Amino acid sequence: MTTTPARPARPANAATTAAEPAPVHPAHTRVEVGPLGVPVTRVALTNGEVVDRYCTHGPAADPAEGLPPRRSGWIEGRGDVETYPGRAPDLADDGRGARRRGATREEWRGARRPPLRGRGAAVTQMAYARRGVVTEEMRFVAEREGCDVELVRSEIAAGRAIIPVNVNHPESEPMIIGRRFLVKVNANIGNSAVTSSIAEEVNKLRHAVTWGADTVMDLSTGDDIHTTREWILRNSPVPIGTVPIYQALEKVDGRAEELTWEIYRDTVIEQCEQGVDYMTVHAGVLLRYVPLTAERVTGIVSRGGSILAGWCLAHHEENFLYTHFDELCEIFARYDVAFSLGDGLRPGSVADANDEAQLSELRTLAELTERAWAHDVQVMVEGPGHVPLDLVEENVRLQQDWCHGAPFYTLGPLVTDVAPGYDHITSAIGAATIAMHGTAMLCYVTPKEHLGLPDADDVKTGVITYKLAAHAADVAKGHPGARAWDDALSTARFEFRWRDQFALSLDPVTAESFHDETLPAESAKTAHFCSMCGPKFCSMRISQDVRDRFGAATGAEIGADAGADEVERGMRAKSVEFLELGASVYLEP
Amino acid sequence: MTTTPARPARPANAATTAAEPAPVHPAHTRVEVGPLGVPVTRVALTNGEVVDRYCTHGPAADPAEGLPPRRSGWIEGRGDVETYPGRAPDLADDGRGARRRGATREEWRGARRPPLRGRGAAVTQMAYARRGVVTEEMRFVAEREGCDVELVRSEIAAGRAIIPVNVNHPESEPMIIGRRFLVKVNANIGNSAVTSSIAEEVNKLRHAVTWGADTVMDLSTGDDIHTTREWILRNSPVPIGTVPIYQALEKVDGRAEELTWEIYRDTVIEQCEQGVDYMTVHAGVLLRYVPLTAERVTGIVSRGGSILAGWCLAHHEENFLYTHFDELCEIFARYDVAFSLGDGLRPGSVADANDEAQLSELRTLAELTERAWAHDVQVMVEGPGHVPLDLVEENVRLQQDWCHGAPFYTLGPLVTDVAPGYDHITSAIGAATIAMHGTAMLCYVTPKEHLGLPDADDVKTGVITYKLAAHAADVAKGHPGARAWDDALSTARFEFRWRDQFALSLDPVTAESFHDETLPAESAKTAHFCSMCGPKFCSMRISQDVRDRFGAATGAEIGADAGADEVERGMRAKSVEFLELGASVYLEP
Repeated sequence: MTTTPARPARPANAATTAAEPAPVHPAHTRVEVGPLGVPVTRVALTNGEVVDRYCTHGPAADPAEGLPPRRSGWIEGRGDVETYPGRAPDLADDGRGARRRGATREEWRGARRPPLRGRGAAVTQMAYARRGVVTEEMRFVAEREGCDVELVRSEIAAGRAIIPVNVNHPESEPMIIGRRFLVKVNANIGNSAVTSSIAEEVNKLRHAVTWGADTVMDLSTGDDIHTTREWILRNSPVPIGTVPIYQALEKVDGRAEELTWEIYRDTVIEQCEQGVDYMTVHAGVLLRYVPLTAERVTGIVSRGGSILAGWCLAHHEENFLYTHFDELCEIFARYDVAFSLGDGLRPGSVADANDEAQLSELRTLAELTERAWAHDVQVMVEGPGHVPLDLVEENVRLQQDWCHGAPFYTLGPLVTDVAPGYDHITSAIGAATIAMHGTAMLCYVTPKEHLGLPDADDVKTGVITYKLAAHAADVAKGHPGARAWDDALSTARFEFRWRDQFALSLDPVTAESFHDETLPAESAKTAHFCSMCGPKFCSMRISQDVRDRFGAATGAEIGADAGADEVERGMRAKSVEFLELGASVYLEP
Repeated sequence: MTTTPARPARPANAATTAAEPAPVHPAHTRVEVGPLGVPVTRVALTNGEVVDRYCTHGPAADPAEGLPPRRSGWIEGRGDVETYPGRAPDLADDGRGARRRGATREEWRGARRPPLRGRGAAVTQMAYARRGVVTEEMRFVAEREGCDVELVRSEIAAGRAIIPVNVNHPESEPMIIGRRFLVKVNANIGNSAVTSSIAEEVNKLRHAVTWGADTVMDLSTGDDIHTTREWILRNSPVPIGTVPIYQALEKVDGRAEELTWEIYRDTVIEQCEQGVDYMTVHAGVLLRYVPLTAERVTGIVSRGGSILAGWCLAHHEENFLYTHFDELCEIFARYDVAFSLGDGLRPGSVADANDEAQLSELRTLAELTERAWAHDVQVMVEGPGHVPLDLVEENVRLQQDWCHGAPFYTLGPLVTDVAPGYDHITSAIGAATIAMHGTAMLCYVTPKEHLGLPDADDVKTGVITYKLAAHAADVAKGHPGARAWDDALSTARFEFRWRDQFALSLDPVTAESFHDETLPAESAKTAHFCSMCGPKFCSMRISQDVRDRFGAATGAEIGADAGADEVERGMRAKSVEFLELGASVYLEP
């Protein structure tokens, strides 16, 4: 976050600044700064200062047309990709409903670009970084994070950070995931067999990025999976992640034992060509780990983990994602898709935390991390789940140690099982803690966790909750500049700049509406008091008075270190002075 | 928490079991167990088991009549208290409105008992504990906590725990605050000059104790302070705390410089006679500490701290609460009122955390703790406020060290300033962490913090949020039996006992309503699937299958440690067995 002086805005004739989405607060504007057009949310304060905040929501666009392909020139400019016809479309990609109807619903009618893929060597940010090449994507994230681009390059080269940017998702605004950078938040959206609508999923995407989601995972498992994802990708300014096994399972009518490497591989290529930026792959669910879950309180709770465990049991063979992992790496390297190594055996209750099943899988994920790196493929590693607060730190410590610093990406963790309906909170507690200790990205949990699928309001609540947890971690880590946001808001609060306090809030809409429930009058927004103390007495006002009187004075001025006589004289003098000045520590009503 | 076998319920003819308040869930019943009638919330599960949970909401009663004085016999049975006429009522006790009208509004018309006070030696639980006397109150809390009564007695004698039980609040059900016991939650209620209604405050009390508040503070600063408090005390099954300086300030029309020890003392006695169980006293705001706040981002944010700072500045004399502290101890000792030593200089922004002003005051609170203990008066010490997550632990470490283990009672702390409207969450993160490290009681924060006064819904949200934070800390501390609740709920989840999952939830109403948004059908509550995976595929179902197949099997059974040939033979055999058994890892739709 930057405070004044503001960075120069991009020229107004840049296409992407033409039409901005409705801002969440009148004092907010999305501005693109610098030659790369890095977006910031510029907050104009009533005292003339401006505060620039990290901005995730992207430029305005008609959802039917999608976002402009801002990265196309960068990708093509490197000269290492080729267009090709791509995989033939298949109605089965959209599931049983589409096959029955002979058509998908709400087909994407915006621009279609032929897919790109690397012509030879890996076209991943990791490959470039290792060769010492600084890409526009690296420059973009360096400016976005306010750090040196060499930090970005070297962390990516070392595998300690990733920029998930599929060459087929040129609409995305690059962002970085790694412990040296701002803690990121992912929001899950997606339909299921029970609920579904493409428009609703696009609306959830909009909510997610408006409120600050850094990446979005489309976890659809219902009808129209392919088409829903197309709408999402074409409209997403943030990286999109998926769990390809969900779609593969739909292609075999939900019968896990009929899954094959070929069906899975074809699904992955389908998604690579669409532009998915990272994919969760549960390659660490090994056959021999499955029995380790038998005595758990809640067994296997990961959907992907269960599918693979079911497959392993049905065939009594090793997980095909593990046996074909190198082939997967070769595919990912051609599109720059990042692995999100799934924790299919994560604990689903605090009783099962940090158990042998979980830790065995983590050791395998560490092995797979190195195998992916051998192909120059970017990797992050997923983590739990449900973990008692005292065991949270151990999770990130072991992951960072065993996986050589590969970014950790955790779901929560939830620190108790007893509060369904409030699991955004039980998990935010674990999330802030695990992020403080080094987790790079937090997967949000909404109030609907364990109970149903989130709607757009739940998406907002989940994102806001996780943004505050992530920011709390940034502050706790002493991340450069992180606390400036807190200080700006607290200063506005102390100076009774109510409008600025709202404008600087993570959720200005809610903050202002809560304030207005008690004091709706327009005048109350500039009043030097609030509903907690009322107009007659206000503790903040007294504090200002203390400051006015003492400034940088020391305790000695009022006698802290003085002799007894001197103290008494000083006290009398100060008392007289205070009363002469009107004893005005209190506001008059 | 106890699971089956259930403890025997008290005989049904016990007066207090006659009319129970409407339970929050049909499977819940308030039951009083054992000879002392310790209340539990008995949760009847569909599998025939029962789970007994800590119960705070008290017996049902007509608010106009108040609760039965269940402790009267215990108090009188000790033979060390006397009744006396008490302080003469004064219209000024109810503020300017009452004086203007010549009457208070909604006067308390239920039973009035003449006040009690100790006849000689201190009648505090600490005095008894130090003399080796085990009171009914100690037995009651030991049964409530499921611990040995000697632990209760010895912790109270050492000052490491308190039972706040004014002899004039016989309606209360004793509870204990100390780090060796369950982490407790306080809920603040109370009117202000801007908003007010006695009925609303009684309703907030009801909400607070229904959802699990262990104590309630009445922080009223508006009209009818005395009468509002009377209604609250007569209806409260939990200890009631106050900040007497708020009422004293009203008696001098909000002019802090006109406060005197005499006015304050009279207010304290008024509240002692009513039955207030603990009082926040900002005796650590010393004159010489006030200038230390001048350079802060947010100065002094505690209302009580500001009042005293204002008084000190106006008079340039030492805080009268500090200079008269021993007299205050003598009063508290006669009623068994506990000190809550207020942190008037707590940080109001993360920038001000753990600064010299805060820590100087804490050193003085440590001194005052020992002075109170010299009078056998029970003490807890208040803590911040706003603290970055990495500095949270230091707060409780220093407090426990300097204050010789006196219970710590913290407000949050909030771990970031940027999320007004969500400060129940920013603070729950700090609260769970500080409680894990030894804080004994957490003062809740509601979504309205910094923005307005909480209504009944906010009270519920605040209490639920803090109950989950407190429970997370109990689990993290390995508190005996704490995790049994999580395990019971998670087991219900794993076994698809949806109704039991709701019944065991901290908030069954919200959990069930969220579930019903997606799957409202009655049949879905017993279905072996949920809206996240749909009827065809369910990860929980697969896990059950793993358990059915493997039981306590080891990895060796499926070849983990076997030779290559043996493995292959084993695999083939297992595969055949699996398919012969119907390959039924998936539920049929």
